[in-house]
Parts: sequence; C-alpha cells; structure tokens
Amino acid sequence: MDNIELLRPLVVPNASKIVLLVLDGLGGLAREPGGQTELEAAKTPNLDELAARSETGLHWPIGPGVTPGSGAAHLALFGYDPITYQIGRGVIEALGEDMDLMPGDVAARCNFATMDTEGRIADRRAGRLPTEINERLLKTLSTIRREGVEFVLKPGRGYRFVLVLRGAGLSDQVSSNDPQTNGLPPHPIRALSPEAGPTADAVSFFVAEANRLLAAQQPANTVLVRGFGKLPRFPTMSEAFGLHPAAIASYPMYRGLAKLIGMQVLPTGGTVAEEIETLRSSFASHDFFYIHIKDTDGAGEDGDFDRKVRAIEAVDAVVPEILALQPDVLVVTGDHSTPAVLKAHSWHPVPLLLHSRHGRVYGPGAFSERACYGGSLHIFRAVELMPMMLANAQRLEKFGA
Amino acid sequence: MDNIELLRPLVVPNASKIVLLVLDGLGGLAREPGGQTELEAAKTPNLDELAARSETGLHWPIGPGVTPGSGAAHLALFGYDPITYQIGRGVIEALGEDMDLMPGDVAARCNFATMDTEGRIADRRAGRLPTEINERLLKTLSTIRREGVEFVLKPGRGYRFVLVLRGAGLSDQVSSNDPQTNGLPPHPIRALSPEAGPTADAVSFFVAEANRLLAAQQPANTVLVRGFGKLPRFPTMSEAFGLHPAAIASYPMYRGLAKLIGMQVLPTGGTVAEEIETLRSSFASHDFFYIHIKDTDGAGEDGDFDRKVRAIEAVDAVVPEILALQPDVLVVTGDHSTPAVLKAHSWHPVPLLLHSRHGRVYGPGAFSERACYGGSLHIFRAVELMPMMLANAQRLEKFGA
Repeated sequence: MDNIELLRPLVVPNASKIVLLVLDGLGGLAREPGGQTELEAAKTPNLDELAARSETGLHWPIGPGVTPGSGAAHLALFGYDPITYQIGRGVIEALGEDMDLMPGDVAARCNFATMDTEGRIADRRAGRLPTEINERLLKTLSTIRREGVEFVLKPGRGYRFVLVLRGAGLSDQVSSNDPQTNGLPPHPIRALSPEAGPTADAVSFFVAEANRLLAAQQPANTVLVRGFGKLPRFPTMSEAFGLHPAAIASYPMYRGLAKLIGMQVLPTGGTVAEEIETLRSSFASHDFFYIHIKDTDGAGEDGDFDRKVRAIEAVDAVVPEILALQPDVLVVTGDHSTPAVLKAHSWHPVPLLLHSRHGRVYGPGAFSERACYGGSLHIFRAVELMPMMLANAQRLEKFGA
Repeated sequence: MDNIELLRPLVVPNASKIVLLVLDGLGGLAREPGGQTELEAAKTPNLDELAARSETGLHWPIGPGVTPGSGAAHLALFGYDPITYQIGRGVIEALGEDMDLMPGDVAARCNFATMDTEGRIADRRAGRLPTEINERLLKTLSTIRREGVEFVLKPGRGYRFVLVLRGAGLSDQVSSNDPQTNGLPPHPIRALSPEAGPTADAVSFFVAEANRLLAAQQPANTVLVRGFGKLPRFPTMSEAFGLHPAAIASYPMYRGLAKLIGMQVLPTGGTVAEEIETLRSSFASHDFFYIHIKDTDGAGEDGDFDRKVRAIEAVDAVVPEILALQPDVLVVTGDHSTPAVLKAHSWHPVPLLLHSRHGRVYGPGAFSERACYGGSLHIFRAVELMPMMLANAQRLEKFGA
C-alpha cells in the first residue's frame, strides 16, 4: 500500500511544528581510503551536539544503489513514493527555469545541436554553446507559429532550453528525436499512443521550422527535444498529511516542486542567514517548513571538497537559531549524496538526524556518515521519513484496532 | 508478493517446537533524556543471559512511524501482513468481549450517548456511564425485535457496548451515525453499497427503537454505532505455515484473534506462572505456542513506569522454565511499544530476541532497546518474523531452483 493511502486516514492535525532542513547533496565520500567525508571534515559543533540528543541514521533516497535526480529525491523526503509519483524531466526542467506550467501543458527539455551536411548529429551540445547565443537564437525560434498550439520557450544554461507546448488536447506520449550519440541522424518524432498524433505533428513542425530558421547558424543549426511531460496532479501535502506547509528555497526547481505538492513558497533571500530569517518571520503561520540549502550540492558537483565543507559549516552556524524556535521535530539531512570526488549525484545513503522529545536517543555525539551508520534509525528509505516525522509530532492515530 | 503466498509453497512440517512470548506493549521510552526505558531499568538476568546467545534486533509492528492497534500488531507477529489482513473495529471489540462471532455476522462498536432537546449529541460518552448502568440499559435494548435479523448485545466497560447483527445477507458496508464531536446531530445511517440497504435499515431501526426505549433515561438517552465489520476469513496458520498452533492468553481479544487464524486456544489461568504451567502441560500437543502477557501493556497505558518494570521482571523469572522445555525456537518480544511516559501505544520499534541453534550470535549480553539497536537482526517489519522463526525451525524449503 502506498504511503499516502496508509497514512492519510491516520492523520490528526495538531499545533506541532516540523522543520525539515535539506542540505542538497549532503552525503559525501572520503578523498582517500580511510579519510574523511566532507561532513566528517567539517567543523560542526552545533550539529554534533544536536546529534547527541537526536535519533540518527541514513536514508536511501530511492532504494539501494539508485542515484536520484533532485526532484525524485525531494519527493521522497516529502513522503511521496518517488517510484509512484514520477515527474517528466521536461517538467522538472521547466520548473527549474521558473516557468509557470498550466494543467494540460506539455514540457520538453531541449538542446541546441550541430548537424553535419549529411544530416547526422555531429555535436549533441552544439559546442557547449554560450548562454548569450542560446538567448539570441531562442528569440528567432519564438517566431514559430502554428494553429491551435503555442510554443513557449525559455533558455537554460549553455546549449539547453525548455519548450512548452500549450493548447487543447496535447499529450506527452511523444518520442524524442535525440539519437543519444553523435554521428547518427536524429530520430523521427513519433506518437507513442494514438491520441498523441497531433502533438507529435506539432513537435515535428517545430523542429522543421527550427532547422529552417537555424540553417545558416554554426554550430547551433538544429534542436533535439526529449523528456516530454505534463504537470502531474499529485495530492497536496495538506490532503495527504494534513499539513500546512511552507517552502524556503531560492532555486526555481525546488520552489516549483514545492508548489506542485501544495506548499506555500515563501519569498526569501538566498543566503543561509536570509533563509533562516524567513523561517523565523513565518514560523507562526505554518506547521511544516522545508528549508533548502543549495551550496553543498553545487560545491559537490564542482568537485570542490573544501567549498562543500565550508557550505556545511555555514549551515552548522545557524542551527542554534533554528533550535531557538523550538520546533517539535527537526530533521537535518540531504536529498541525496553529491561526493566531491565523484563531481555528481551518487547512490550513497544520506546521513540524517531527527530531533524530537520522543526519540530513543543513544547518540553517537557526532553528525557524520560514520556516526550515523551506528545510529538508532539504521538505514531506511527516504519515503519512510514522513511517517516518522508525523509520528514524532504526534500527528498520527493508531492503525487498526 | 504476500508473505503467505511466498512461504506457503516452501513449508515443510517437522517435529520442531516454536515459542513466541509476547509481552504486550514491551517497547518503552526513558523518563528523561539519556535515561533508561522500562526494559533497561528492569533487572532481567535471565533474558540478558539468553540475549547473549541469541540474535537480537527490533521490529516495526506495521512500518516506520505507524502506531498499531493490538489486533493489527499481533497479526503481523503471526505472519499476516496487517495492511492486507485488516479486521473491522467492531469485530475486534466483539472478540474482546468474548462474543462468539459466526460467519455472516456484522459487529459494531457502540456508545451510550446523551442527546439534547434539540437532537444534538451533547456527550458522546453519556458522562462516562458506569458499567452497572450500561448492563441494566442493555437488558432494555435486548427486547428490540425485527423480522429476519437478530440483535445480539454485550456490555463493555463504561459507556461502551457491542452490537452484533445476525441473519442472512447482512453487509458491513454501513455508515456510522456518530458525528465524532459533541454539539452536532447524529448522522443518518446509510448503505455504502447497494446490497447493504437491508442492513442499514435494520441498524436505523435499532437506533430508533433504542431512542424510544431510552427516552426517559439520563444521561444515556441514545446510542452511537460505528466500526461495522464482518468476521474475516483468513487462511489459518496451519494452511499458511503448516503449523499446529496453540494460544496461551487470558484476555478475550487475544484469544478471539488467535481463534480467527486457527490457533487452538488453551484454557489457562491468567498469571504468568499459570500461563507457563499451561505451556508445560500442553507442550507435547502443539508445535507453535503463542504466550500473551498483558500486564506490561496495562502498566504502560496507566503511565506506571515502575509497575511495567515489575511486570517485565516477573516474566524474566519464568524464562528458565521455558528454556527447560528446550524449544527449537524461542522469540521474546512485544506486539508494539507502550511507553509509560506516553500512556499509550506508540510507533517506536520493539526489542526482540530470537533464540535457536542456528543463529549468528554476536550477543550484546543484555535484552534492552539499547542493546537490540546493535543486534544482528537490525530493524525489520514484524511480518518478517514468521519466516525467520520458520527458517530457524528448519521448516522452510529452498525458494527457486
């Protein structure tokens, strides 16, 4: 049975406050065998002290060995089984570019690419096009018009952009033209279900028009489109868990994802101090607060071990300010691991502490991967965090008689 | 795949003996941060010694964060997935009052309540009616007659009683008249599926007649009915696991539940010593023994930490007598946690030891929450205990080729 089906009938709202502090990409790896991870190397006196009076453990964002995208990993932390509640990559990309998707829209992630004179894709990323050229070329493509469908475009970084199709009766059951490797011609766009015919035609039309308009350009003389998806209709956190939640995040993708499940996205500055100030000023108005810290992940993706250490230490410094608000439940964790040595998201379980009045505390006295492996929560799936947070906030009734 | 579907084809009966000793509500919490739980505070030399040569761990009765009712928690210990095998609350209540339910019966849990002159429920519990008055009023209600259906009544404690409808073609798809909060009129009783019409009519008739008969009574001048359920047809433990099981329990609910899954309920006195004597005298006749100890839960529910400690110590004293019978597998655990500090069932994982010749033993030398968190079984779902018991009794064949 789905988490939400199981928990929804048990929910009893009360006045408790839950704070979920997510250090994006928190989990790490040592630079050499026997060395310390980023979190172990960081000086975190406040988190260490808190861990000593909290339950600790680690979570698999999706399941053993599975490296998650940020969207899926966050959904799991919010109690949505990421295997049941999937979101098309185009939608994640659109949310990440702060586009306001409407029900029925179909979003796709796109690349500018280079096609050779024989019609083969010579470079799927158009020589890692600078963003300025991307923006200029998209102005040209924005002149493409077709009866019954609107093409909404938004540049991303470098060679990437988002295409949103808006109109009646659109479908996301459309195949990509991306051959996935250089040296092959683009695939034809196909309808993957009967009702997707008109959408496939519209996308084919868009690609043909783009090829015509970009013909004289080098290196970006074609476009690849993929990851078609529609804005899904998920139960809100209020419907699923009886919460009145708020999101404190400055990056568009996280704000968009939070909105998708009914969180109120609070206006906030993007520094850690500004986010904590937003928490403080809105603490009376909500009962569940998701705070997102992006710097840890950015440093990990850049392979910058020391910068990730400093990003963790910056969060440690504000922990007393969060505790001063006396939340009933405080969880500190990451959405996934981003070890600097891998310069990428990874599958490694993510350290976590859960602080409440009702924990069984045999604290290791440190917040680190090593200490969390010995913690009382052991290793669990991220989707199991929400029932534990709700239980510790005494927001769940008994199951069964 | 369901536990039972998975295991049933693997079962190979043999002469081994399994004893499952359930201390109801065993799991606990410390009274102050860093303090000891009830089990940690109890002097349990025999359990500690046994833990040192057993596998230990903890179980989630249902899943992370979920607080179970006793029925659901016990079913899980017996190998029945409590989410698949659900029992209506009325049925649990009827079993708890030692009523003999027959296939087709529909049981409901009921309250005497107070209705004001405007037809609103002024007190859903009729001023927490004394049991003696409850018994007297039920004699009056037992005169209610209707063609084709029998109303069987049994008083519970205080304001509570059980109504069983007996007859042909009854359904449990009937809505409650309980408005859930004081100050609202009772809901009309409705059929929730087409075939439930006659049952809804019979319940409405019973409520109307009760109102007429109780009109002059104060404070109990009406009745609220809810939790309609039918005796489910579950596979017996013999069908599912090839066992010939016996239950040693003195409380009606546990005896009724055991009967529901085909255990033979042995006549027994209710003290720990009497229950162990029953185990000894019947040890040759069965291969699976469920022994239920109620005092631990009662003390926890009363918030009496010290009495729960003494109840645990009383069980520790008889452990040598159980071991003297040389069961092949002995499990000591609880069905759920009932920390005295919460005065209620809770979600916390429940300590467990599993003793057999075939364990991997790295014993902590103590039976306590703290020690079990470091045990080799880690934290698992209660429904996973049955396959472990059967395996240790060498009652399961290989799965797959």
